[in-house]
Amino acid sequence: MATASNEAHHPLDPGISKLQFAPFSSALDAGFWHELTQKKLNEYRLDETPKVIKGYYYNGDPLGLPARLTLEFSAFDMNASIPARCCPAFGTLYNTNTFETFKSCDKKSLLEKEANEIWESIKSGAALENPMLLNRFLLLTFADLKKYHFYYWFCYPALCFPDGIHIIQKPVCLGDRFPLNQIQALQKAYDELCQAEGVTALPYFLIKYHDNSVVISLLKKWDGFFQDQGEKVTVGVYDPCNLTHYPGWPLRNFLILAAHKWGSSLQSIEVLCFRDRTMQGVRDITHSIIFEIKLPQRALGPDCPKAVGWEKNQKGGMGPRMVNLSECMDPKRLAESSVDLNLKLMCWRLVPTLDLEKIVSARCLLLGAGTLGCSVARTLMGWGVRKITFVDNAKISYSNPVRQPLYEFEDCLSGGKPKALAAADRLQKIFPGVNAEGYNMSIPMPGHPVNFSEVTMAQARKDVAKLEQLIDAHDVVFLLMDTRESRWLPAVIAASKRKLVINAALGFDTFVVMRHGLKKPKQQESGDSYFSNASGSSDLLGSSLFSNIPGYKLGCYFCNDVVAPGDSTRDRTLDQQCTVSRPGLAMIAGALAVELMVSVLQHPEGGYAVASSSDDRMNEPPTSLGLVPHQIRGFLSRFDNVLPVSLAFDKCTACSPKERVSTLLNS
Amino acid sequence: MATASNEAHHPLDPGISKLQFAPFSSALDAGFWHELTQKKLNEYRLDETPKVIKGYYYNGDPLGLPARLTLEFSAFDMNASIPARCCPAFGTLYNTNTFETFKSCDKKSLLEKEANEIWESIKSGAALENPMLLNRFLLLTFADLKKYHFYYWFCYPALCFPDGIHIIQKPVCLGDRFPLNQIQALQKAYDELCQAEGVTALPYFLIKYHDNSVVISLLKKWDGFFQDQGEKVTVGVYDPCNLTHYPGWPLRNFLILAAHKWGSSLQSIEVLCFRDRTMQGVRDITHSIIFEIKLPQRALGPDCPKAVGWEKNQKGGMGPRMVNLSECMDPKRLAESSVDLNLKLMCWRLVPTLDLEKIVSARCLLLGAGTLGCSVARTLMGWGVRKITFVDNAKISYSNPVRQPLYEFEDCLSGGKPKALAAADRLQKIFPGVNAEGYNMSIPMPGHPVNFSEVTMAQARKDVAKLEQLIDAHDVVFLLMDTRESRWLPAVIAASKRKLVINAALGFDTFVVMRHGLKKPKQQESGDSYFSNASGSSDLLGSSLFSNIPGYKLGCYFCNDVVAPGDSTRDRTLDQQCTVSRPGLAMIAGALAVELMVSVLQHPEGGYAVASSSDDRMNEPPTSLGLVPHQIRGFLSRFDNVLPVSLAFDKCTACSPKERVSTLLNS
Repeated sequence: MATASNEAHHPLDPGISKLQFAPFSSALDAGFWHELTQKKLNEYRLDETPKVIKGYYYNGDPLGLPARLTLEFSAFDMNASIPARCCPAFGTLYNTNTFETFKSCDKKSLLEKEANEIWESIKSGAALENPMLLNRFLLLTFADLKKYHFYYWFCYPALCFPDGIHIIQKPVCLGDRFPLNQIQALQKAYDELCQAEGVTALPYFLIKYHDNSVVISLLKKWDGFFQDQGEKVTVGVYDPCNLTHYPGWPLRNFLILAAHKWGSSLQSIEVLCFRDRTMQGVRDITHSIIFEIKLPQRALGPDCPKAVGWEKNQKGGMGPRMVNLSECMDPKRLAESSVDLNLKLMCWRLVPTLDLEKIVSARCLLLGAGTLGCSVARTLMGWGVRKITFVDNAKISYSNPVRQPLYEFEDCLSGGKPKALAAADRLQKIFPGVNAEGYNMSIPMPGHPVNFSEVTMAQARKDVAKLEQLIDAHDVVFLLMDTRESRWLPAVIAASKRKLVINAALGFDTFVVMRHGLKKPKQQESGDSYFSNASGSSDLLGSSLFSNIPGYKLGCYFCNDVVAPGDSTRDRTLDQQCTVSRPGLAMIAGALAVELMVSVLQHPEGGYAVASSSDDRMNEPPTSLGLVPHQIRGFLSRFDNVLPVSLAFDKCTACSPKERVSTLLNS
Repeated sequence: MATASNEAHHPLDPGISKLQFAPFSSALDAGFWHELTQKKLNEYRLDETPKVIKGYYYNGDPLGLPARLTLEFSAFDMNASIPARCCPAFGTLYNTNTFETFKSCDKKSLLEKEANEIWESIKSGAALENPMLLNRFLLLTFADLKKYHFYYWFCYPALCFPDGIHIIQKPVCLGDRFPLNQIQALQKAYDELCQAEGVTALPYFLIKYHDNSVVISLLKKWDGFFQDQGEKVTVGVYDPCNLTHYPGWPLRNFLILAAHKWGSSLQSIEVLCFRDRTMQGVRDITHSIIFEIKLPQRALGPDCPKAVGWEKNQKGGMGPRMVNLSECMDPKRLAESSVDLNLKLMCWRLVPTLDLEKIVSARCLLLGAGTLGCSVARTLMGWGVRKITFVDNAKISYSNPVRQPLYEFEDCLSGGKPKALAAADRLQKIFPGVNAEGYNMSIPMPGHPVNFSEVTMAQARKDVAKLEQLIDAHDVVFLLMDTRESRWLPAVIAASKRKLVINAALGFDTFVVMRHGLKKPKQQESGDSYFSNASGSSDLLGSSLFSNIPGYKLGCYFCNDVVAPGDSTRDRTLDQQCTVSRPGLAMIAGALAVELMVSVLQHPEGGYAVASSSDDRMNEPPTSLGLVPHQIRGFLSRFDNVLPVSLAFDKCTACSPKERVSTLLNS
């Protein structure tokens, strides 16, 4: 690869008469990498096929700046506009999935492939019609999205003459060669042609000048433009280089085109490197350079000439470059995109049909911020859920932090922080992108009679109203309390509002995780019993007892109760009050509660999905994530889970449509 | 209940001639509650049967202090010595399991029961032989060990004369009644009797005095002591009260005894309330009081007299008292005992045979502090494990905190803290009682060849040595890394050192959690194959293929490999590198890894325990915690676990005894 950059300020050695070119420096800004990240996560995923991208180069830089090919966030949008006085260039992106592929990529063959396409476009005449075809680049990348390290290797393929290009007349400045009026005429002609063509810049153009006139035209007009055999041919190139003795890279492929096209009839060609600078408010093209070269005759055979173009790295050697964006990105945004990454990774290979949006956007209300609540919240965070609200009325005690994974020792001091508030605070500390809230309030319970004072009745009414409002404002209600009866009122309200309820409860080494049956919307209820509809009892008799039960027929936590919930804490010994359980149990049940929610949300029918039972483990699962059970009952002593299914009880105190929320305060 | 405390400084109204008594105030110090907590957790558990406890009263207080019955930490130790000049009193502790039982306890019947025992001891003469039987108390308690709130109700039963006791001669100070030499003679006689009896104080005694002499004797010597019918009878009582006009409570039951025993022959009785104070270094009994009363004749029938004695609460009403010790205990000690509480609760009702010590004392080495490592550490904390060591060489990245429950957003800033160190710090923040350490180091891996420079080879040797030292210093090694090959070296070292290895690995929605086979101690190895021993292949053929396989024949993670571990990260795409998994999976697998460890440790044979398989789910479990599987393979899409068992491979690259650790650096 030829480079002249080290010799920028030296006069050409008189012995050197070969033309040298200033290569492009790639300029890939943070916006480009950000957009690549997004494309990779949301669109390309594991797809490694080449992608078309678009960059541009500018030619108005002051002396000293390298010629740059710039890629920014717009590189992936073919319709994005190009900044004024910039020339677009199209390239091919090879984004690899692994660093190994990146490193072991056959760069020689990539370059040859690209060069060959250029050569073909020259031979076919396509490049004459559309000179942009000469301005191509390659970009080989590997995006390490865990570390925000981006590895890349840039290539601007240039076809070469086997023996180089001999200079006939050394480059001189336009201002040293032409009078000002002629230069102004050139500028005017160029601007008019751009305007007529509706482009920001013309990469290549034809020039004819006489004493007082300058005419310029498009490349494809060559034959009509240079009519006289032997006439002096001048071509213009929009030149990103600002070195006084060297042209920039885009000229190279054009000279190959010229040699191929007209080499047999032309001895030499004059090249104007058009440079268009605005300094202190005054536009100036006088620093453009012009020179004449010998057009190598019959140097090109039918095969594609040798090509060069891989960019050197920062150390000046042949190797890739790396940019580390982890430091300069806003840490909170970094955290957000990193969290999304792990989730999106799932889609790429493992579950291409996963609809993450349904999960991420689920607004989750966690009633209870104890062992279960903490584990559920953490698993929800892992799934990218952004709206998590806690309700609890307890304070953090010293025994909590080792079992409730959102609290620490400090939270226990001075009587303990309220759990709901501390849990929400902790989520923000774990992941600033979450929208977490906590409500330090009691859930009114049957069997725990409020004193019938004005004050306590008023507070109970307020609590009921607040709970109803919270359930309204969320999509999924998790029942994670440590008493049976505290689950009742939220179950009633959620049933009446058709919200998905996920319930988890622990024994010592057993647990139940279940979704409540989701009643049909009111207009679909037929008669006063949802058992009397067409798909009701008849098909239940026709099939296995508990197969094919749709979500709206499933029971809730209270459906198997024969008595109304009473006060279960009143007479429990300490080991019962603590819901003493094997420490691993809450983590398992909490994680399963969320995974059950995810499975339900992934089912096209959501909460109405037919319940999977243990027997369905042999069958084709209903979603890409697997079964959608009604209940998961776990037995840690046997390391076993079963998936029972149970029907709604039409006189259930909690979920029967006959029941009304208002009964609570009347009871 | 009679009380005189409000009238302490008023002269007796001349119209009032009935004797009143100053009641005991209970003085239960923090040491008592602490000891009760320990007894409840470690000994009583759910046992509510009455327990004998021991208190004491002092009679040397300055005027103004109430008469106290003191219970301190020694109350549960019948052999504990009593402080000098204190009189012991035995009581019955009724510690209830629930606040409901505490409140609903039938206090009337408790008092009657105790009073009846006193009455029986009077009638039988036992109280005469052992006057301590008159000094009994009751203590009803409920210890809320979650909040460190202690509820109690104290009772010092006093049998009553139906019509009270008439005063014949009002109380006067000993100093106002007797000359100093006689008082000194009394003191000397009392001291000598105490010394002769080997006691700190005599609760009751008999006194005879003449002009210059004082004789005292034990209660049981009455008949010989007072020989003359009609002789004046003087009794001494060791009196905790320091009011000048009233005796303390202990006199009451003694007067009943006296009336029952000698009421028919005696008209009156003189009472000396012996009070023994040391002020400014000078001992003084002159403030003792003496008075004469009418001994009610034939006031007592054969039935137990009515009794009183329940203490009033702080507000002066009939009700229990509560002491809140949560504030005054050292928070770190509080946290430790609270954490222990939850664990001990398990023992009480659910798993009485649980040997917590085996679990709590297990020193656990966690290789890997990522999603699995964090979940394992949290579950270990829940089980009370105190020694947890992390090894990891990664730094915390932005995607970690939502899935790795020991890290927060702040840990990711400035390039991220080293995971091993941050994890250890977090455990200390969660529970200051834990002994957590972190080592930020790499685990040398086959297939990831170190550069053969002096420096990297030296570092690898150091890492191997450090790893070996760490494995030596722990009891259980958890393999929680994200590559297969990084598990190899620790598996080899742990196998050679006979350490229990628990291995957990994640797929997208599947996991394996297993214990490695634990080789027999070296002296038990027979020949060069552990397959050739007597209980070997023959009984494998005789039974179901995978039943009754003892721990020493079980395979390790590498036993099913046909090739040695290579570099599995080299060519993995991003989704594989991240070990992308459903977010709930690591919590489930991490929790199960610890529960598996616990199950193994609870088995009397530990790591040598026969492996349970899925088929054993129907059978009687080998331990109170259930099965002790070899492997748990989980399938989240089916919410299912299976428990495979596999045999060790005698040419396994990791666990075969033929292999040597030293092969690593030679390979």
